[in-house]
Amino acid sequence: MTIKQPLRHAIGVFDSGVGGLTVLQALRRRMPHRDFVYLGDTARVPYGRKPPKMVAEFASGIARFLCDMGAEALVVACNTASAVALPGLAETCDVPVWGVIDPGVEAATRASHTGSVGVIGTKGAIGSGAYQRRLENRGLRVWAQACPMLVHLVEEGLANSPEAELLVRHYLSSRPEIDTLVLGCTHYPLLRPVIQRVAGKGVTLVDSADVTAERVEATLGGPPRCFVQGRVMHFVTGDPLAFTHTAHVIGGVEGDIVPLPLSELAKAEAEARAL
Amino acid sequence: MTIKQPLRHAIGVFDSGVGGLTVLQALRRRMPHRDFVYLGDTARVPYGRKPPKMVAEFASGIARFLCDMGAEALVVACNTASAVALPGLAETCDVPVWGVIDPGVEAATRASHTGSVGVIGTKGAIGSGAYQRRLENRGLRVWAQACPMLVHLVEEGLANSPEAELLVRHYLSSRPEIDTLVLGCTHYPLLRPVIQRVAGKGVTLVDSADVTAERVEATLGGPPRCFVQGRVMHFVTGDPLAFTHTAHVIGGVEGDIVPLPLSELAKAEAEARAL
Repeated sequence: MTIKQPLRHAIGVFDSGVGGLTVLQALRRRMPHRDFVYLGDTARVPYGRKPPKMVAEFASGIARFLCDMGAEALVVACNTASAVALPGLAETCDVPVWGVIDPGVEAATRASHTGSVGVIGTKGAIGSGAYQRRLENRGLRVWAQACPMLVHLVEEGLANSPEAELLVRHYLSSRPEIDTLVLGCTHYPLLRPVIQRVAGKGVTLVDSADVTAERVEATLGGPPRCFVQGRVMHFVTGDPLAFTHTAHVIGGVEGDIVPLPLSELAKAEAEARAL
Repeated sequence: MTIKQPLRHAIGVFDSGVGGLTVLQALRRRMPHRDFVYLGDTARVPYGRKPPKMVAEFASGIARFLCDMGAEALVVACNTASAVALPGLAETCDVPVWGVIDPGVEAATRASHTGSVGVIGTKGAIGSGAYQRRLENRGLRVWAQACPMLVHLVEEGLANSPEAELLVRHYLSSRPEIDTLVLGCTHYPLLRPVIQRVAGKGVTLVDSADVTAERVEATLGGPPRCFVQGRVMHFVTGDPLAFTHTAHVIGGVEGDIVPLPLSELAKAEAEARAL
């Protein structure tokens, strides 16, 4: 199979599945004239409970593939991959790379007045300590909680359900007094109403998607190269129909969806290892 | 890609993912000398929330593929696929086909003394009404509940966790007096301890895996063709590493795991449609 470079000057965005579409949407809101190439690694989703080394290898292959596709910048729209793969990715590709963690940490630092913040995410993201270290380095007291079931709530279309209420209450039950809570997973913005209700009105929720898009725009934005609406191309490693179906709960997909055999990513992973 | 018939006189077993491994294990316990070909459609998992027509097409392609691989009998080790695809499958393949629903229904009928039974399963399985209709046709009063989050509990390795307790209590909270509860999903046997605790000691839990294996053995069993341990071959449409990783929570995988491109199943689906 030969895949041609589909879009020039595009921003590459990737995630293990549909969650990164919330980041893609935030990027497109700020840079509507840009082209984007999205890769959803749905054949290997979820990353959150996989060994960090495995996720880092997946990420390096995907980054390489997106660069080969002509991406001139990359956004790792997945907290788990940002946590475990980001330092290595800069070496794999010769383009700027953003994760979703640093922007979230900056926004939380700006938002907190009391110095006590919380962060929730997948097992992988929280287990890596990536958020906690960065927040503590900025002098904040940090409460962190892995919430392995929340992604599934969103993907099952249960963001507003008794199950969501039960599980969010459970995961937040041990929190101390905090004034800011980082939603450390791209799926969680869909749970914002129930999380806000349970956390209380006084707690500021930080959505990394939006602050990441702000930072990417600040660096790459500039004047648009043209004024037509940018295009989006989606590569998925699993079934395109299943991707479309699950993406409905995130607000749907606009643009082409192209199946990408894992063998293509295996080649890209081997190339990345050889660097 | 050309895939050769790997095993002769094998029993084909398929599921959307790892759940069917509980059925495979039950079959192997009863027929240890048999060869098995397992197919886990992990690139398109979960089936439980997909449209019935889509699941039926997936199933017909998979059945066709397993027959092409030389399977001389098929077990649909997935409640959702059994519910929506079974009548059609008999036409696709010229070999005996078993689902997991009828054996579960028979076992529940035998187990119930009061005539009041319950069944829990995925949205797809419960939404299809397949269990309810069959149980009611046998004169039983039926309480049915879709439990969309329970599969995820098992796959996250949270079968013994506060989340499991919370969610099982939630899903069983509206049940009337029942004396028998059918575990209408291949993942649920892993949740047996918490379900038994919440349902109460007086409730008989019916695990379809075991009763299905009993029925298949009764028809196919006979004297073993040879006395060496049978072999198992696993085809997976998603990533083999991810399959192995998730399969750990079900008790692990024994035998080869071979990646199967979805394009092979697409061919088989087209063949099945042409019949």
